Amino acid sequence: MNTFGELFRVTTFGESHGPAMGAVIDGCPAGVALTTAHVQAALDRRRPGQSNVTTSRNEADQVELLSGVYEDKTLGTPIAAVVRNTDQRSSDYAKLAKEDRPGHADKVWRERFHHRDPRGGGRTSGRETLCRVIGGSIAEALLAREVPSLKTVAWVSQVGPHILATPPAALTRAQIDAHPTRCPDPRLAALIEADLIDAKAKGDSYGGVITARIDGMPTGLGEPVFGKLKSLLSSAVTGIGAVTGVSWGPDDLERRLALKGSEFHTTRDVYGGIQGGLSNGEPILLRVLFKPPATLADHAKAGRHDPCILPRAVPVVESMISIVLADLWLFSLARPHRP
Amino acid sequence: MNTFGELFRVTTFGESHGPAMGAVIDGCPAGVALTTAHVQAALDRRRPGQSNVTTSRNEADQVELLSGVYEDKTLGTPIAAVVRNTDQRSSDYAKLAKEDRPGHADKVWRERFHHRDPRGGGRTSGRETLCRVIGGSIAEALLAREVPSLKTVAWVSQVGPHILATPPAALTRAQIDAHPTRCPDPRLAALIEADLIDAKAKGDSYGGVITARIDGMPTGLGEPVFGKLKSLLSSAVTGIGAVTGVSWGPDDLERRLALKGSEFHTTRDVYGGIQGGLSNGEPILLRVLFKPPATLADHAKAGRHDPCILPRAVPVVESMISIVLADLWLFSLARPHRP
Amino acid sequence: MNTFGELFRVTTFGESHGPAMGAVIDGCPAGVALTTAHVQAALDRRRPGQSNVTTSRNEADQVELLSGVYEDKTLGTPIAAVVRNTDQRSSDYAKLAKEDRPGHADKVWRERFHHRDPRGGGRTSGRETLCRVIGGSIAEALLAREVPSLKTVAWVSQVGPHILATPPAALTRAQIDAHPTRCPDPRLAALIEADLIDAKAKGDSYGGVITARIDGMPTGLGEPVFGKLKSLLSSAVTGIGAVTGVSWGPDDLERRLALKGSEFHTTRDVYGGIQGGLSNGEPILLRVLFKPPATLADHAKAGRHDPCILPRAVPVVESMISIVLADLWLFSLARPHRP
Amino acid sequence: MNTFGELFRVTTFGESHGPAMGAVIDGCPAGVALTTAHVQAALDRRRPGQSNVTTSRNEADQVELLSGVYEDKTLGTPIAAVVRNTDQRSSDYAKLAKEDRPGHADKVWRERFHHRDPRGGGRTSGRETLCRVIGGSIAEALLAREVPSLKTVAWVSQVGPHILATPPAALTRAQIDAHPTRCPDPRLAALIEADLIDAKAKGDSYGGVITARIDGMPTGLGEPVFGKLKSLLSSAVTGIGAVTGVSWGPDDLERRLALKGSEFHTTRDVYGGIQGGLSNGEPILLRVLFKPPATLADHAKAGRHDPCILPRAVPVVESMISIVLADLWLFSLARPHRP
Repeated sequence: MNTFGELFRVTTFGESHGPAMGAVIDGCPAGVALTTAHVQAALDRRRPGQSNVTTSRNEADQVELLSGVYEDKTLGTPIAAVVRNTDQRSSDYAKLAKEDRPGHADKVWRERFHHRDPRGGGRTSGRETLCRVIGGSIAEALLAREVPSLKTVAWVSQVGPHILATPPAALTRAQIDAHPTRCPDPRLAALIEADLIDAKAKGDSYGGVITARIDGMPTGLGEPVFGKLKSLLSSAVTGIGAVTGVSWGPDDLERRLALKGSEFHTTRDVYGGIQGGLSNGEPILLRVLFKPPATLADHAKAGRHDPCILPRAVPVVESMISIVLADLWLFSLARPHRP
Repeated sequence: MNTFGELFRVTTFGESHGPAMGAVIDGCPAGVALTTAHVQAALDRRRPGQSNVTTSRNEADQVELLSGVYEDKTLGTPIAAVVRNTDQRSSDYAKLAKEDRPGHADKVWRERFHHRDPRGGGRTSGRETLCRVIGGSIAEALLAREVPSLKTVAWVSQVGPHILATPPAALTRAQIDAHPTRCPDPRLAALIEADLIDAKAKGDSYGGVITARIDGMPTGLGEPVFGKLKSLLSSAVTGIGAVTGVSWGPDDLERRLALKGSEFHTTRDVYGGIQGGLSNGEPILLRVLFKPPATLADHAKAGRHDPCILPRAVPVVESMISIVLADLWLFSLARPHRP
Repeated sequence: MNTFGELFRVTTFGESHGPAMGAVIDGCPAGVALTTAHVQAALDRRRPGQSNVTTSRNEADQVELLSGVYEDKTLGTPIAAVVRNTDQRSSDYAKLAKEDRPGHADKVWRERFHHRDPRGGGRTSGRETLCRVIGGSIAEALLAREVPSLKTVAWVSQVGPHILATPPAALTRAQIDAHPTRCPDPRLAALIEADLIDAKAKGDSYGGVITARIDGMPTGLGEPVFGKLKSLLSSAVTGIGAVTGVSWGPDDLERRLALKGSEFHTTRDVYGGIQGGLSNGEPILLRVLFKPPATLADHAKAGRHDPCILPRAVPVVESMISIVLADLWLFSLARPHRP
Repeated sequence: MNTFGELFRVTTFGESHGPAMGAVIDGCPAGVALTTAHVQAALDRRRPGQSNVTTSRNEADQVELLSGVYEDKTLGTPIAAVVRNTDQRSSDYAKLAKEDRPGHADKVWRERFHHRDPRGGGRTSGRETLCRVIGGSIAEALLAREVPSLKTVAWVSQVGPHILATPPAALTRAQIDAHPTRCPDPRLAALIEADLIDAKAKGDSYGGVITARIDGMPTGLGEPVFGKLKSLLSSAVTGIGAVTGVSWGPDDLERRLALKGSEFHTTRDVYGGIQGGLSNGEPILLRVLFKPPATLADHAKAGRHDPCILPRAVPVVESMISIVLADLWLFSLARPHRP
């Protein structure tokens, strides 16, 4: 359905070309510091039109909080946040009304829902991820109070053939955001930028990998069988449109699987901070694999398309991780220990 | 928690060294053909002691159905299935009582639950997967009636350095089961068998990849945003103990991510049968990555340990997939289309 | 939490004196006829200021649909509906900021959430029921397509000492709405109206009973154990603010409990249309008991208060019933029968 | 479905004439003192054949704990409990195979599930309540540790025409259990006993009222909108087979509804300990109304039938209340307050 989480619950709504997108966050306790500016800042990191490597569509994506917050504190009631869709250039989409776009989900959507919203991607559009960022920003407001040590930072570690082999030592989001590609290695970032500008001009595209690092985890988050931490994180990030794989650890897992156990287990971080489904307190490294976006035959439209969604997907990955962690944190409180 | 699924729900229980393991399956409609023998046959495929490449622990794993079935048909009520634990060689585990086993989740479990079951792995043991196989076998009984075209077949496509590069054309489970390694390529299977026998003797271990192929899918299964088919399948298979990654498509996804979109999208099956989060009716290829089991310093115990869990994990992967598909099938019925 | 239903899910948000109230309805299938006017008509039946027997607060309660509907059909995606709060006469509430109102939940709210929204009742206000009416109106749009025979009609069958002993033969909502008290007996309605005008002037109040009749039920809705139809309907209607009891059957159940079984079971309708937790196809009669609202010492405010919430609660009771029935209907589709 | 609760979850299974009944309790934290004897003692209070006012069927109902407990403490894993059905006098039921029993749910069950278990009531039998008592006994073990002040005690306050007008001052369960009718007034108990013995002989039956009193409640349990404490308790108790109504407060609510608000609200306890959906710390009085069991034309069977289920339903009502309270208590922990 359209709800994610059990105790910290994010329900999203909105078609990309309807009146508005939004989210209702339920289960956030009372008294958490939260402002519209905090949510807006998170949305601004995902916003289209940020740089020359992203779509030139420029959507302001101004958020309004309709409930759940009073005098910059959460009330403990559901927090509803809405973003009006302003860039509804329906003329761009007019001719889409009749034809299914190749490489999009139009055909399967029509077979499932027995109609297709002629205005465009509807719920399958990448625009739905702004609702995830709203949810993530509120999850992070909660976690900032509850688990101040916790830091989730994601970055672009691969675009096409350009691979950042060694995960960087602890970085801040500000350091990642410093380059429009969100690749923290300046030399690699320059190569990626050049390729993306070229792909954008040609209507071509690139996939790649976003790596996320979670530091300062409390131990014991997750559930032993079906709610394993890796299961919940996998579910969260593979729910992002173009994601086609996920793995744990610092680098290409497939290559490491050639090793015997006696070799594989020599380095500590191969566990990725998770054992028996539960966090063990060590950093978690999660790699999220994105396929390239569908390419465009019609170069005239190329400017209004992202040649690579990874730079803008970084805050989406962080958001989904934060929603999972907020939910698991609340669960951990519901399992009291009385010594 | 310990329940998986929304409409077709599998709740599991049992510690590996307690009196019994089991599952309660809720939401299976009435009138589905189901016998104890059907569930038992599924468990026999997962059973330890099957061959020289698995643990020599020999557990009969006899299942009893306590409810929900009458005269070989489901009643539409919860189906409870129980397997008594018979091989409780507690002497093997006696000295574990005091020490956390390296590479196991003992320490993190103790920090979370404030105790550790001294009898062994408890819920984190690989033995909990027998409950998943019970659930999967009942899901498959339902799907056999509802979607007879649907076939889910998994096989071992990599163990350590031995990689089956090209996925085989449609195979049956019987063909996969013909070799104890469950690798369908005879030459590769022989190499894997030799390495596993060697590893078993030395207390070493191997990881690898299980590939699953889903044929005959109805279109439109999955939900567009949070319940995407790939999200649910990821959640299902990464919940299996040693799984450390999952990806879609026929082969090593990381390598294909080096390609431009114009190259990546030339072959049909890169979509992996899923678009916009929904099944599109084409075959789905899912790759499940397993890390090697923790290795044993104490070679005396080596015989009672699986040097590689992949052969026995094949029915577990199939089961988790089938549970997801049964659940999504019931969901699809709850979205009626009235032309 | 703030979500009701499993397959047809209504999530509500909004404080009575915040920017807006609203609901997100998830799980409504695609292709259902739905307009803003349909939802608005339902809200108008609940609106304050309708007559001399209700509060004189006059709130327009204009609804806007933000998503899930296109060209007067549902899209199969979440339907978000918002009502802006316009009558935020904060001066009325200014002095409430410091004191807990007697008879209200202010004190318990403060102890639970560690703050109290000084603007008034927040989520505990009767105003939250408009979100239930939004949900109910959409449930009824779905049911009108799926189960056209189904009719849920509620009326005021008791206010204070005035009791409508015999439930009326089948009536329409229009007939019930013809009198501002929503009591379908003209003589009794006149007595009730006089008492309510008097109570309103004096700051006094009345409770009573709303009876709901469900006709045209399909058989077999409900679940045998925890999801019994009567359990779900009880949960639904006792969740309305002032409800303090619920019972099944045509009249005062407490009186009938004095009878022996051989007497009690002579009349068919004592079963209330439910057996073994499931609907049996016969009409269901449900009685919902409301305590009188807290009374006001300060007569100056009396005009802005409902002396009896029953007339306006009639569409709320109908809405909660319809949400339950829409949810159970979808569940029934997810239990396929294959002869 | 067959699961009750969100964080403290009770999943039940079993047909009354199948091999076994049971429950899986998930979400109980680790370290709670729990023995088989504790669960058995709870079941013994519900057991048939206890006295001359109940059925003469004598079922031992011996419980076995299959998981989740080790050395008399919960492990934090699911607790599975099973009771074998021993009194399967199928000859009694042989002739039921072909005919629907009047007053039972046989017909509606057959229409819903498209079969009817010829062995008898299946899941709709009163025997399923033993699973509720298992769940309740474990909920009470948890609450005994977490909220030692909390006491839930229920008693029979009406059988047919015999009404206990004034709720007794605080009583213990032992005091209630002292009389086989579980009516704490000796004079009334004697009258009830005589009527029940008479009804049992004649195949007749009685309904009545069970009143439950919850003392020592923490404040703030419940959720403001859909998860109101009264909504959850209503759902819990109206899910018991023969319950046809529920109300709050010390006595017949219908009679009190004739009063004006200024009269109704003079006594403190009319609130029943709940305001705005949340507990306010005062005692809660809940009245549960049971219709008489279906009567028997065939007097030969009369001995094996309960002429009145209220005495045996007392522990069932207490159990359902305790499950709700355990669940809400865990929820309350998941809403942390940080001053």
